[in-house]
Amino acid sequence: MTADALAELSRRLPDLRLLTEAGDLEHYGRDWTRRWTPAPLAIALPASIEEVQGIMRWANENKVAIVPSGGRTGLSGGAVAAHGELVLSLARMNRVLGFDAVDRTLTVQPGIALEAVHGAAREHGLIYPVDFAARGSCSIGGNIATNAGGIRVIRYGNTREWIAGLKVVAGNGELLDLNRGLIKNSSGYDFRQLVIGSEGTLGIVVEATLRLADPPQPSQVMLLALPDMDALMQVFALFRARLSLQAFEFFTDMALKHVLAHGAQRAIDGEHPYYVVTEFDAPDERAQEAALTAFEQGVEQGLISDGVIAQSDAQAAALWRLREGITESLAPHKPYKNDISVRISAVPAFLQEIQSLLTREYPDIEVVWFGHIGDGNLHINVLKPDTLSDADFIAQCEHVTKLLAQTLQRHGGSISAEHGIGLVKRAYLESTRSAAEIALMRGVKSVFDPNGILNPGKLFA
Amino acid sequence: MTADALAELSRRLPDLRLLTEAGDLEHYGRDWTRRWTPAPLAIALPASIEEVQGIMRWANENKVAIVPSGGRTGLSGGAVAAHGELVLSLARMNRVLGFDAVDRTLTVQPGIALEAVHGAAREHGLIYPVDFAARGSCSIGGNIATNAGGIRVIRYGNTREWIAGLKVVAGNGELLDLNRGLIKNSSGYDFRQLVIGSEGTLGIVVEATLRLADPPQPSQVMLLALPDMDALMQVFALFRARLSLQAFEFFTDMALKHVLAHGAQRAIDGEHPYYVVTEFDAPDERAQEAALTAFEQGVEQGLISDGVIAQSDAQAAALWRLREGITESLAPHKPYKNDISVRISAVPAFLQEIQSLLTREYPDIEVVWFGHIGDGNLHINVLKPDTLSDADFIAQCEHVTKLLAQTLQRHGGSISAEHGIGLVKRAYLESTRSAAEIALMRGVKSVFDPNGILNPGKLFA
Repeated sequence: MTADALAELSRRLPDLRLLTEAGDLEHYGRDWTRRWTPAPLAIALPASIEEVQGIMRWANENKVAIVPSGGRTGLSGGAVAAHGELVLSLARMNRVLGFDAVDRTLTVQPGIALEAVHGAAREHGLIYPVDFAARGSCSIGGNIATNAGGIRVIRYGNTREWIAGLKVVAGNGELLDLNRGLIKNSSGYDFRQLVIGSEGTLGIVVEATLRLADPPQPSQVMLLALPDMDALMQVFALFRARLSLQAFEFFTDMALKHVLAHGAQRAIDGEHPYYVVTEFDAPDERAQEAALTAFEQGVEQGLISDGVIAQSDAQAAALWRLREGITESLAPHKPYKNDISVRISAVPAFLQEIQSLLTREYPDIEVVWFGHIGDGNLHINVLKPDTLSDADFIAQCEHVTKLLAQTLQRHGGSISAEHGIGLVKRAYLESTRSAAEIALMRGVKSVFDPNGILNPGKLFA
Repeated sequence: MTADALAELSRRLPDLRLLTEAGDLEHYGRDWTRRWTPAPLAIALPASIEEVQGIMRWANENKVAIVPSGGRTGLSGGAVAAHGELVLSLARMNRVLGFDAVDRTLTVQPGIALEAVHGAAREHGLIYPVDFAARGSCSIGGNIATNAGGIRVIRYGNTREWIAGLKVVAGNGELLDLNRGLIKNSSGYDFRQLVIGSEGTLGIVVEATLRLADPPQPSQVMLLALPDMDALMQVFALFRARLSLQAFEFFTDMALKHVLAHGAQRAIDGEHPYYVVTEFDAPDERAQEAALTAFEQGVEQGLISDGVIAQSDAQAAALWRLREGITESLAPHKPYKNDISVRISAVPAFLQEIQSLLTREYPDIEVVWFGHIGDGNLHINVLKPDTLSDADFIAQCEHVTKLLAQTLQRHGGSISAEHGIGLVKRAYLESTRSAAEIALMRGVKSVFDPNGILNPGKLFA
């Protein structure tokens, strides 16, 4: 039957590239999570919106599940195909379609890498300000599907803020041309905003018009060492009050250990439990003096133990590498990841509570913390000990995540700050969204995707 | 039957304030549009979320239509109750509930006036940057229902950008606590964004958490006179390239005539067809010189005929009054209003086309133009001649609006930039949204409001 269906798809779309080799199925069937064994039916690589629509019509008629797929750098299993789905990869639809200097927008296909978007914006003297470590591999379509955040949210907000228009093939096969680059458009429900962050369960983004911004002012990068966790939010308040922050990222000594072992260079001597990398506007002497004043006040108040300010672009890059290299340095340890958030005001009390929770629940397991603390977003990476099987390790982590979800719920937080729910956090969605909200989500899903073919099992079972 | 239902509502919610006097029905049954005769069943003025939920449960059981109602300054009939609906006025729920200095958020009830929000933010040294002329009367709940824009969009975006959390009683009576002030929250569909701009058809906003911003830098206000319409977007480009704009508003000599007749003071002598009021950051001499340079270049290139720069706060206010006083000055002429937008890049071609359309179609009728041209948003006010009956006048305007909608569709624009669709533009929704989108809107509406009791007839019939 599925072979018949595939043959039928090829008949309808004779130019459609379809892959069925075992190696391709494995390659395209998984994302950066490694928990599920890829088992897709086949991989479709459409080259046009028409082919995407053709696939969706065929899938609706044949009740074949579709997994939309971009750079597959996701960390929540949103692009995993483990149950005979057709992977609809947008990898071939990866071009810049247009730039408009008056609107200051860039129109792109969804498969383009974030880094290529950055480059295209720079060619016109502008920037696309969403940025994070996976920039070279992740696709803009995937960024939109998870409302990707990253390291500049404190200045520029999430992906949501930068989408002026979206073309989307809905689950029912209809092509929607949403908002079309308008700045003001109060004409009914903003489905553009609904699709952003919907993890491929409502429709497939087939084109995006991105807003661009002026490049930021010249900036400086500083690395700070902090004596304890209490200092973290106080230093943030100190710096935010005096400087125009572009980023404010933190990590622990454990994170530093791994990134140094992975080849990064130590910038501050001695042992310190917490570190901050911050970047701020420094167009003139006044701003540079303000940064020094903030730093000195932090030292005087015992909030900062040591610090270094980058004296060159190369040194700035080296300081950034200490933060940005963490995820890659942890990968060999098969980390179990939590990506959580609370309101900034709730961070201190929440950190206290989960610090004791994690110490208690992971007595013999290494836990690495880092994150975008200026956004209330914390990444917890639990490293698998060699002595534990994958299954036992995950079972233990899931138990702790359940407790973590309860703590988040008490603090009004979110079980997914920027990675999405996917398969990984499906069981914990109730900690962030009420039963009434989830019921409405299911209802909306069935309006856009009446046959339930789009990314089934992701977000909710 | 309706009397019985009302009695039942009073029994269930004995403290609920209910008005049924003819004067109250007329007062609360209309907004700033004057096309429909108010005829509500009664006016409910709940004082709490629980009362709103109680009303919604009762309305669902008794199949009574509900018109959510704020400051009733709307211009598209979104808050009109002309068919025996219960008006649910949020006028009594108008308090500030809290301020958080770390999150930089203000939590308010929906009935609070925009101006009161401005004041509350200023008390904490911050601003709520959405602003427009109706600030003293409009409510924040209504701002959210239409995704209100206004005069600072070019700098700060629309209302949508400033909503960190919403409590909403959905059409089905469920209380939703959406996003709860989080900066990063990728955990399923962002219903906060869906509710913003939904014109009271999906749920009733009962609480909002607003993001606040630092006050802008010291600014300057300039009035420019332009020789023709072609100059408009060129002057915009000239100023945008050199200055950090906070506002860039335009109006015609016809608009000036009315606002001067209404008591505003002339600031530039002579006859000029077009005027611009612009406000821009001017923290230091460099910025002020840049403004002068831009002005002089505009004069040299024949794009600017004359100009004046405010020398005091009082003069800045006087220049702003020339733009902000227009709507009020036109009110006695019962204007028929179009509130349309295109992408900025499409403005010149679009303006050319509709200028000849309006000249042709309104040969003997005064047409006043003004708007937020830096956002691609144009307001057209057609003034009723004394010789025409209301009905004949509206019939003629509707005919022209149909042509205008066709032009907008060709240019990818919107029939409603910031006022919403309501009753006024319902017939033209198809010019901005496709049949597939409208079908999905209806589907989503029926998920949130299965009995169709929320603002029926608004947005779509």
